[in-house]
Amino acid sequence: MYTTSSRSKLDGYETNTLQTSQHPYLPASSATLFQAKATQKLSFEQIGQHIGRSEVAAAAIFYGQAKASPEDIQKLSELLGIHHGLLEEQLSGFPDRGRSVEMPPKEPLIYRLYEIVQNYGYAYKAVLNEKFGDGIMSAISFSTKVEKETDADGNNWAVITLRGKW
Amino acid sequence: MYTTSSRSKLDGYETNTLQTSQHPYLPASSATLFQAKATQKLSFEQIGQHIGRSEVAAAAIFYGQAKASPEDIQKLSELLGIHHGLLEEQLSGFPDRGRSVEMPPKEPLIYRLYEIVQNYGYAYKAVLNEKFGDGIMSAISFSTKVEKETDADGNNWAVITLRGKW
Amino acid sequence: MYTTSSRSKLDGYETNTLQTSQHPYLPASSATLFQAKATQKLSFEQIGQHIGRSEVAAAAIFYGQAKASPEDIQKLSELLGIHHGLLEEQLSGFPDRGRSVEMPPKEPLIYRLYEIVQNYGYAYKAVLNEKFGDGIMSAISFSTKVEKETDADGNNWAVITLRGKW
Amino acid sequence: MYTTSSRSKLDGYETNTLQTSQHPYLPASSATLFQAKATQKLSFEQIGQHIGRSEVAAAAIFYGQAKASPEDIQKLSELLGIHHGLLEEQLSGFPDRGRSVEMPPKEPLIYRLYEIVQNYGYAYKAVLNEKFGDGIMSAISFSTKVEKETDADGNNWAVITLRGKW
Amino acid sequence: MYTTSSRSKLDGYETNTLQTSQHPYLPASSATLFQAKATQKLSFEQIGQHIGRSEVAAAAIFYGQAKASPEDIQKLSELLGIHHGLLEEQLSGFPDRGRSVEMPPKEPLIYRLYEIVQNYGYAYKAVLNEKFGDGIMSAISFSTKVEKETDADGNNWAVITLRGKW
Amino acid sequence: MYTTSSRSKLDGYETNTLQTSQHPYLPASSATLFQAKATQKLSFEQIGQHIGRSEVAAAAIFYGQAKASPEDIQKLSELLGIHHGLLEEQLSGFPDRGRSVEMPPKEPLIYRLYEIVQNYGYAYKAVLNEKFGDGIMSAISFSTKVEKETDADGNNWAVITLRGKW
Amino acid sequence: MYTTSSRSKLDGYETNTLQTSQHPYLPASSATLFQAKATQKLSFEQIGQHIGRSEVAAAAIFYGQAKASPEDIQKLSELLGIHHGLLEEQLSGFPDRGRSVEMPPKEPLIYRLYEIVQNYGYAYKAVLNEKFGDGIMSAISFSTKVEKETDADGNNWAVITLRGKW
Amino acid sequence: MYTTSSRSKLDGYETNTLQTSQHPYLPASSATLFQAKATQKLSFEQIGQHIGRSEVAAAAIFYGQAKASPEDIQKLSELLGIHHGLLEEQLSGFPDRGRSVEMPPKEPLIYRLYEIVQNYGYAYKAVLNEKFGDGIMSAISFSTKVEKETDADGNNWAVITLRGKW
Amino acid sequence: MYTTSSRSKLDGYETNTLQTSQHPYLPASSATLFQAKATQKLSFEQIGQHIGRSEVAAAAIFYGQAKASPEDIQKLSELLGIHHGLLEEQLSGFPDRGRSVEMPPKEPLIYRLYEIVQNYGYAYKAVLNEKFGDGIMSAISFSTKVEKETDADGNNWAVITLRGKW
Amino acid sequence: MYTTSSRSKLDGYETNTLQTSQHPYLPASSATLFQAKATQKLSFEQIGQHIGRSEVAAAAIFYGQAKASPEDIQKLSELLGIHHGLLEEQLSGFPDRGRSVEMPPKEPLIYRLYEIVQNYGYAYKAVLNEKFGDGIMSAISFSTKVEKETDADGNNWAVITLRGKW
Repeated sequence: MYTTSSRSKLDGYETNTLQTSQHPYLPASSATLFQAKATQKLSFEQIGQHIGRSEVAAAAIFYGQAKASPEDIQKLSELLGIHHGLLEEQLSGFPDRGRSVEMPPKEPLIYRLYEIVQNYGYAYKAVLNEKFGDGIMSAISFSTKVEKETDADGNNWAVITLRGKW
Repeated sequence: MYTTSSRSKLDGYETNTLQTSQHPYLPASSATLFQAKATQKLSFEQIGQHIGRSEVAAAAIFYGQAKASPEDIQKLSELLGIHHGLLEEQLSGFPDRGRSVEMPPKEPLIYRLYEIVQNYGYAYKAVLNEKFGDGIMSAISFSTKVEKETDADGNNWAVITLRGKW
Repeated sequence: MYTTSSRSKLDGYETNTLQTSQHPYLPASSATLFQAKATQKLSFEQIGQHIGRSEVAAAAIFYGQAKASPEDIQKLSELLGIHHGLLEEQLSGFPDRGRSVEMPPKEPLIYRLYEIVQNYGYAYKAVLNEKFGDGIMSAISFSTKVEKETDADGNNWAVITLRGKW
Repeated sequence: MYTTSSRSKLDGYETNTLQTSQHPYLPASSATLFQAKATQKLSFEQIGQHIGRSEVAAAAIFYGQAKASPEDIQKLSELLGIHHGLLEEQLSGFPDRGRSVEMPPKEPLIYRLYEIVQNYGYAYKAVLNEKFGDGIMSAISFSTKVEKETDADGNNWAVITLRGKW
Repeated sequence: MYTTSSRSKLDGYETNTLQTSQHPYLPASSATLFQAKATQKLSFEQIGQHIGRSEVAAAAIFYGQAKASPEDIQKLSELLGIHHGLLEEQLSGFPDRGRSVEMPPKEPLIYRLYEIVQNYGYAYKAVLNEKFGDGIMSAISFSTKVEKETDADGNNWAVITLRGKW
Repeated sequence: MYTTSSRSKLDGYETNTLQTSQHPYLPASSATLFQAKATQKLSFEQIGQHIGRSEVAAAAIFYGQAKASPEDIQKLSELLGIHHGLLEEQLSGFPDRGRSVEMPPKEPLIYRLYEIVQNYGYAYKAVLNEKFGDGIMSAISFSTKVEKETDADGNNWAVITLRGKW
Repeated sequence: MYTTSSRSKLDGYETNTLQTSQHPYLPASSATLFQAKATQKLSFEQIGQHIGRSEVAAAAIFYGQAKASPEDIQKLSELLGIHHGLLEEQLSGFPDRGRSVEMPPKEPLIYRLYEIVQNYGYAYKAVLNEKFGDGIMSAISFSTKVEKETDADGNNWAVITLRGKW
Repeated sequence: MYTTSSRSKLDGYETNTLQTSQHPYLPASSATLFQAKATQKLSFEQIGQHIGRSEVAAAAIFYGQAKASPEDIQKLSELLGIHHGLLEEQLSGFPDRGRSVEMPPKEPLIYRLYEIVQNYGYAYKAVLNEKFGDGIMSAISFSTKVEKETDADGNNWAVITLRGKW
Repeated sequence: MYTTSSRSKLDGYETNTLQTSQHPYLPASSATLFQAKATQKLSFEQIGQHIGRSEVAAAAIFYGQAKASPEDIQKLSELLGIHHGLLEEQLSGFPDRGRSVEMPPKEPLIYRLYEIVQNYGYAYKAVLNEKFGDGIMSAISFSTKVEKETDADGNNWAVITLRGKW
Repeated sequence: MYTTSSRSKLDGYETNTLQTSQHPYLPASSATLFQAKATQKLSFEQIGQHIGRSEVAAAAIFYGQAKASPEDIQKLSELLGIHHGLLEEQLSGFPDRGRSVEMPPKEPLIYRLYEIVQNYGYAYKAVLNEKFGDGIMSAISFSTKVEKETDADGNNWAVITLRGKW
C-alpha cells in the first residue's frame, strides 16, 4: 500500500546546517561535522549508510548525543574530508548528552514529539505495564529510525520507531 | 527473528488502576472507566479489540486524552458494564488534552520517552527535514502503537511506533 | 471562493461541557452556565446570537473572562433557564481574568495559538510598528471572532480575527 | 466605514532595526537582513510586495521563523543588495523556529497577544470545537496578516488575522 | 483642569465580591468581610471613610494584606454587621502577606502594574538614587491611594500614588 | 507641610553609571548614553529638563524602555556631546521593551515596587473597578514621576505617581 | 547602651494564630498547637521558657520544623492543656522539614531574610572560609535566637543570631 | 567559655579569589578588587579593619553589594595598591544589588543559610511579631557580622549576627 | 574497625508516621500501610526482614515507589494486620513512581542527597565512563541499602550503597 | 562471587575531556587539568592513586567541586606536567561548589542518580531516621567511591557508596 522513499541527494539549498549561535552548548565536534557536511552536500541518509548506522544515529553523533566509535571516526573523517586527528580529538570524550534541546522545546517539530509524551505518556505506561509487567523501556539500549511513507492519496507520513530493551 | 506476543489476560494483581488522588486533573470519566476495567479484569488489548482501536488509543480515552465517538461509548458501555447514559454524559465534551502528565515527567517510564525527545529531538528534526523538506509531523493526524518483541536470547523489547501526517 | 458555515445545532454528544475538576480556579458562575448549556443543548453560536455578542465573547463570559452586563445576565437567565437572582449574584463582581489557561498551555489547540505568538511575535511587532509607529494593540479595547471557511477542495480553515485599538 | 492604510515609506528614524545584543539566539541571516533593510530604508510592506508574500511572512524570514525559498533568496538579494552567495549560505538550512521570543514575552506589544491566548484560550477552543468538531487549527499550514483600519472617529485599529487549516 | 470624582455608591451589580474558589490562600476573614460587604452594598470608599483609612488600605485589610487595629475591627464590625467576636478572632493574628497575587500576575489590570515595574524599574532606581543617594523606598512605612481624574476631553485617568519612607 | 527638593547637581561620585556586564540585554544606545552622562556629570533631572520630559522618562530612554523622538535625539546629542549620526542610528528602531529588569527583581529597591504589586494588587484592582467600572489602567498611555518630600521631622519620603488612561 | 526587652504577655489581639487554609502542608500537630496557644493566650517566650528552649525553637516545633522530645511533649501538653495522647501521636514521627515557607518567600518579613542571603551570601562565604578554612556551617547542629534591642533614640532593633557548628 | 579567634593572615593558598567566569554578573570593580587582594595576600579581616567596617561589609563591597563611600575608595586604593582614579570610576555608581547569588543557591555553604530561612522563616516571623508587633526587620538599615567561637571540646562554631531596624 | 548496628525496636515515639496532608500525591495504600505500621510499632528493618527485602525496598513500597509482589502483599497483610483483600486492591496497580519527593527537595536530609548529585554528578559520570565505557547505570535494575557504622570515636556514619546494572 | 575490576589504562579514544563550551561556569583550573589529563592519557584511577584520594574525589577536584590541598597541587602538578605556579594560582581559592550540574540534570547518567533521590528520598529518610533518630547525613563530612562488579553471568554492575557522618 505504502511506498517508502526518501531524498538522499541534497541540493545545496536544503542541507542541514548548524547555526552555532543558536546552539551554544554543543561540543566543538558539532561545528566541524556540520560544516563539512554542508561543503560535501551530503545527507544524513548517505552518511548513515557510509558508517553503517541509521540516519538518526548519524545525526545524533553530529549533535553530540551519541558516542562515535573509532570506526565511525575513521569513516566520517574519510567521507567528510575532515583531518582524522582533529576529529579524533574532538570526538574522543564521552558524550555529555541532553544539551541539544532546551526543554520544553520551542521548535514546533520537536514540540510535537514532546506533546505526544505529554498527552500519551500514561497511555503508553499503562499498555507497556500490561504487556511487560512492571519495569521500564530503556532509552539507552535503544535504537530508533525514521521512515517516509506515501499513501494512496499522495499524502506523506512520517513514521518514527522507538525500540528499547525492557 | 522476533516473535510478537502480549498478555491480554490480566490477573487481578496486574490490572491497571487509577489512583485518583494522584491524578486530580483527569475528567470524571477516567475514574468511571478505570473502576469498571478493574472490576471486569480487562486489559487494554481486549478493550482496544472490542472497540476496534489500538491499545494506546483505548488507554488514551481512559486518560481523557482522546475523544470517544458515539460508537466507542456504546461499546465501552457494553463491555465494561457502565450505564450508557452516565458514560455518554461524562464523555460528551471535547477532551481537554495534556492534563495527565505533569512535565517534566516524574514517572521513570514516561521520563525515558521525554529523554528521547531531549536527546534526539534535533536529530529527528534534521532527518525529517531532509526526507520531507520544511514542515512538521502532525501530533493530531497521528496514530501510535506498542508492540512486544522477544529476541533470540529471550530479551524483551518494547517497540513504539509513531505515525503522523506530514 | 470560500463558503462560511458553522454548526449551530449541537447534538448532545458534542456539547461543550466543563470538567470542573479540571478547572479549579474558575468562578462559581462557570459551573452554573456550562451545566445549563449542556441541559439546553445550545451552542455558543446560538447563545451569542441571543445576547447579541460574538460566539467568542459569549464563551468568554462562560469561562469568567469577560464581564456580563445586566442585559447579558437577563438574557442568559432566560435562554438557559437559570434563576435570575442566582446568576446575578454569581456574575455581579468584576472578572478575575487570566485564570482559565495555565501557561504554557498544555491543551494542543490552545498551544498552537501560543506557538504563533512565540514564533511570530517579533514579526507582528515589526509590522505593527511600521504601520502604526510606536505603541501597542490593546487587548482590552478588543474584539475577536472565529469563522469557518471551506475551500474548493473541501478543506476547512479556521479563521481567527483579532481587532484591537492602537 | 473603515479605511485601510499603511505607511510603506520609512524615514530613517522609524526603520526596524535589530539589536543583535538583545537577540543572541537568532541566526546569522537575521543580522545580515536587518542591516541591509536599514541601509535601504525599506519597509516590510515593500519587501513583502517584492517577494510576493505578506508583510508578516517577510518579517518572519528576517527573524529566522520561516523558510526562504530559492526565489525568496534571489529576490531578497536583489532588493536588499546582499551578495547572493552569502544570503544563500545563511538561509540554506531549515529554520530553527521559536527562538525569537522568550516566553512569557516581556515586550508589552507581544505580551498583549500572549494575554489574549491566556484569557481567551478556552473560549477559542470551545467555539472551534463546536464549529469544527474535535481537532486542531494548524499553526504550520497557516497564514497571517496585519491590517490597519481607521474608524470614523479617527481611531486606528490593528486587525490581525490568523488562518489555519483544520 | 481635572476634576476628581468617584462612585461611592455601589449598585448590587458592581459590588466587588470574592470568588473564594479563586483565592484559596486568603485567610478566613476575607470571606467573612467580602460577604458582608456584598450584603451591605458598600464601596471601599465608604468603608475607608468609616474606618478613617484610604480605600486601598481598607481593601488591603479585606485581602489579608494589612493588619486591622482593634479600632478597625470595632468599626468594621459595626458597619458591616459582623459579630465582633468572630471578626476579632479571624483578624487577631499577624497578616501573612503576599498571598493574594500569584506572580507573575495573570489578571490584566494587575499585570499592567507589574509591567510598569518590569519596564521602569531601573529608571525609578536611577532617579531615586540621584535624588536620595543610596538607599531604598520602604514598602512597609508606606501609604498609597487611588484617584480618578477626568480630563477636558472626558477621558478618565487613574492616578496611583505610592509614598514610602526613604 | 512638605518641601519638595532634589539634587540636580551630581558630584562624580554619585553619577549613575551602567555596568554593561550586568545588563547584557540592553541596546547599544544605553552604553553610549550612560557613558556620556558620566563624562558630563549630568543628573536625570538636568537631562529631563533639557529635553522637556520627566526625569523617569529620560531615564527610560537611557535604559531602552521608551522611544526617543527626533527632537529628543537632537537635544540629547547636543547636551551629552554625542555625535548626532551615531545616536540617531542607535535610537532609530522601536524599543524592545521589558529587557532591563529580570523578574522577579533581585535589586532590593526594585523588589520593593514588585512587592507592592504582589501585596496590593487585588486591593488596587478592587478600588479601581469600583471607581471606574470594568476595564484597565493603561501602562502605555501612561506617565509617571518621582518626587522627594521632607517632613517636619526631617525624614525623606519618596513619592511615585503613576497616571494611566482608563 | 541597649536595653533588651520583650513582650511576654499577649493580649488576645496579638496572639499568633495559624490560618490553616494558608498552610496546607503543615502537619496536623500545627493546628492543634496553635489553637491551644490562642486559647491560652501564651507567647512563644512563655512557651519557650516552660520547655526550656529558645522562643524560635518553640515556634519551630509549632510549625513542624523541629522534633519535639518526649519531655517537650509532656510539657507542651501540660502548659497548653492538650490531651497528652493526642499530642504524642501527632508529634511522634520525624519532622518533614522545609514545608512551611514556599520559596521564594512572599511574606515581606521572611523575604528580607531571603534577601540577606541573596545579597550577602558570597560575602558570608568569603569571610567564613577565611576564618575557618574550607567547610560549611551546619544548619542542623545549629541554634538560633531573636532579641530585641532599643537604642538611645528609642528605635527598636531586631537581632537574630545564627550559631552553627563548623 | 568560648574564645573568639580568627585567622587574619592569609597564606597564598587560602586567599579568596574570584573566578570571574563563574560570576558574569558582577561589576567590573569586583575583578579589580579581588585581583589586588590576591596580590597583596590580605584577608577581609585586615581590609575591614583598614576601612573601619566589618569583614562582611568589606566583602560585600568586593561583591558589588554595598556602596563604597569616597573614604572607603580612598582607603581601599591605598591598601590594595589600586589606582585611585580607576577605583573611583568603577565604584562611582550605585550598587545593582542581588546579582551575586543565583537563587536557590547551589553553593552548599550559602544553601545552608537559605535552608535556615526556608525552615525557620515562619518561626522567626512569629517570634518577631510577638516581640515587636506588626512590622518588618529592615535588610537595608542593617548590619551583620561573623564570629568564630571554639568550645571546650575544641569544636569551632560559626556565629552570624543579623541586626536590623524594626 | 566499624561495628554495624541498628535499632530495630521502635518505641512509639519514634515510629515513622505519614502526615497524609503533607503527601497529597501518594496512593491510598500509603496511608493504610503507615497507619498499621504505627499501630504495630514495627520498624522498616523488621518489616524488611519479614518480607525478605532490604529496609529501603520495604519503605519504598510504603511510599508507593516499588511494586509489591503477591507474596509481599500476603506477608505485609499478615505482619501488619491489614485485611488481605483491601491491601491487594490498593497495591494491585503498577506504581506511579516519582510522586513522593517534590524536586528540588525541601527536606534537609533528602536535600543532602540531591546536593551530592549536584556537586558530584559529573565526577561520577567521568569515573563511571572510564571504568565501564559509554553507557549508563540503571536506576531500575537497581538495589540499594542503608547501613550504620560507628567508628572508634563513637561517631555514627550513614552508609548508603547504590548498585545498578550497567 | 563478584570480581572487582577496572580499566586504569586509557587509550586516547576514551579519555575524559572537557568541552569548555558546555561548562561555562567551571573555574579556569578545570580547563587546565582536563587538557593535561588528555595529553598524558591518564585515568582518574591513576590520578587518584597518585594523590592518595578516591577516583571520585580526584574527579571532583577537576570539576572544581573539592578543595585541593597544597600536597594535591604539588602532586597534580608533577603527574600532569602543569607548571606549579599556574596550578597553585588557579586552585588557591575556595571552591564555589554546585556549578557543574544544571538541575534537573539533562545528562542521562546523572539523571539516573537524580531519579534515585526523587523516588527513594523519603524511603532513605524513613530508614535513616529509624536507624539514627532525628538528624541528617552530612554531604560535607562525606566520602564516596565507585566500584565495578562483574557477576557470574558477565554482567557489569556499578556500585556507588556514599558515606556521611550523622
